[in-house]
Amino acid sequence: MVDPVARVRAVRVPLTGPAEALERAVPEEVPVALVHDGTTYAVMLATPSDLEDFAVGFSLTEKVIAAPDEIREFEVVEHDEGIELRMWLTPEAGGRVRERRRLTVGGTACGLCGVESLAVAVAPATRVAGELHVPPDAIHRLLTALGPAQELSRATRATHAAGFWTPADGLVAVREDVGRHNALDKLVGAVARSGIRGADGVVVVTSRVSVEMVQKTAALGATILVAVSAPTALALRAAEAAGLTLVAVARSDSFELFTHPGRILADADADAAGAPETLVHVA
Amino acid sequence: MVDPVARVRAVRVPLTGPAEALERAVPEEVPVALVHDGTTYAVMLATPSDLEDFAVGFSLTEKVIAAPDEIREFEVVEHDEGIELRMWLTPEAGGRVRERRRLTVGGTACGLCGVESLAVAVAPATRVAGELHVPPDAIHRLLTALGPAQELSRATRATHAAGFWTPADGLVAVREDVGRHNALDKLVGAVARSGIRGADGVVVVTSRVSVEMVQKTAALGATILVAVSAPTALALRAAEAAGLTLVAVARSDSFELFTHPGRILADADADAAGAPETLVHVA
Repeated sequence: MVDPVARVRAVRVPLTGPAEALERAVPEEVPVALVHDGTTYAVMLATPSDLEDFAVGFSLTEKVIAAPDEIREFEVVEHDEGIELRMWLTPEAGGRVRERRRLTVGGTACGLCGVESLAVAVAPATRVAGELHVPPDAIHRLLTALGPAQELSRATRATHAAGFWTPADGLVAVREDVGRHNALDKLVGAVARSGIRGADGVVVVTSRVSVEMVQKTAALGATILVAVSAPTALALRAAEAAGLTLVAVARSDSFELFTHPGRILADADADAAGAPETLVHVA
Repeated sequence: MVDPVARVRAVRVPLTGPAEALERAVPEEVPVALVHDGTTYAVMLATPSDLEDFAVGFSLTEKVIAAPDEIREFEVVEHDEGIELRMWLTPEAGGRVRERRRLTVGGTACGLCGVESLAVAVAPATRVAGELHVPPDAIHRLLTALGPAQELSRATRATHAAGFWTPADGLVAVREDVGRHNALDKLVGAVARSGIRGADGVVVVTSRVSVEMVQKTAALGATILVAVSAPTALALRAAEAAGLTLVAVARSDSFELFTHPGRILADADADAAGAPETLVHVA
């Protein structure tokens, strides 16, 4: 197996004073082919760790499978050029991916015009629902727990992490990758494989929130997404429409609440803050 | 035209004290279809600014075109679902993209097995060469110049920037986007359209360095890439093989030099630092 961390030589050049040789740990980045029933669905550049979680999570968030057990067999095959994640699907899931492939071949590379391709590019996020409520101080606690759990990041300072936190058990899973979307796909796979329901916990990511981070969180069925950095306008519209509570710019002393605040703030507190019923209002 | 910055409502929740309503600027993220001769090549989620630079730069770094004038006509078409960038190519470039499409249709979605798809996924970076040398203090000067030039980032704190700096004229172009790859594609387009040779300047990015950042910089013909954050191991191998000088972890008091140090450090200084001739040695 390829090590997810490599050691390299470099020279540190200070603003003043002499240069000095150093060694540094850097994350690996490897082409990873996601292969369903013998045919490649996509090739992603990813950190070679937690590959079965990645295969399951990617297949779930891409809606190739509806549950982990729709992958009947899983195999990791290493090549000089990269890694193949071979998945053999149940007949039902296999039929779904063949149908998708038929549409995609028409869709991205042969004959489809621009406006048709735009329509298929951004599918609406799954609508989420659930009874989970977490108080504001829980957001601070889950952020505090995430830092020490980021092993790859501690070694390389160059990877993103995604975690899953439940009120009962705290941080139950953390996954890392050079790509923030891959880190979240790995987490979705890890949570789904563990049998924990997505609706029972909070997804936390160390990155910014693009629309794809909202789609993946909603595909897991989680109702609250917490991000260390800021969201895009499209991510906010998607979270609003999906019923997802989005917390972002989450720092040690405060966080910002953008959509569906009721799972975190009591109505009275939201009213007192002067928050309108619908927060997102993109002007 | 869609504004690249949107204003949204949020609630700031401090660790102690009452919540308060706020307004925040967030970057737009829009599906953008890159359409050559009437057929979609790809749909990217991008910030809707500098779209002609994006179209030219993307087409160059994807090797659909060899020079900006191979796009005969350019048109921006807005739809509810996103933005189409319609490019009409010269017959030669048009033939190239049809050939590519023929291979891709075979390649990613119908019938190609994993190992074949891995081989086409990561093409070697263009080999670069040029006489440009810049002294260490120039790296500090270009970083200092980049900060104030990041308008979108100042408004939103959520976008990446790519800049092009020449010894003669300083920072001649800066482009921003929610995606770091898009920001670099926009920059490549801007530089190519301006007629400045890539080999005459330094590319600087605010992000980490994945292999794709190296490929895009090499496609521009630039010989030095400076990044604020850390590289991946694959990016280092690609930079080494392409003859590209890679500076990363570039901070206000120092930077790290990973590949082909001779364009920045004199041999004597590199020797004194105990740097081996080939820095990259991934263990």
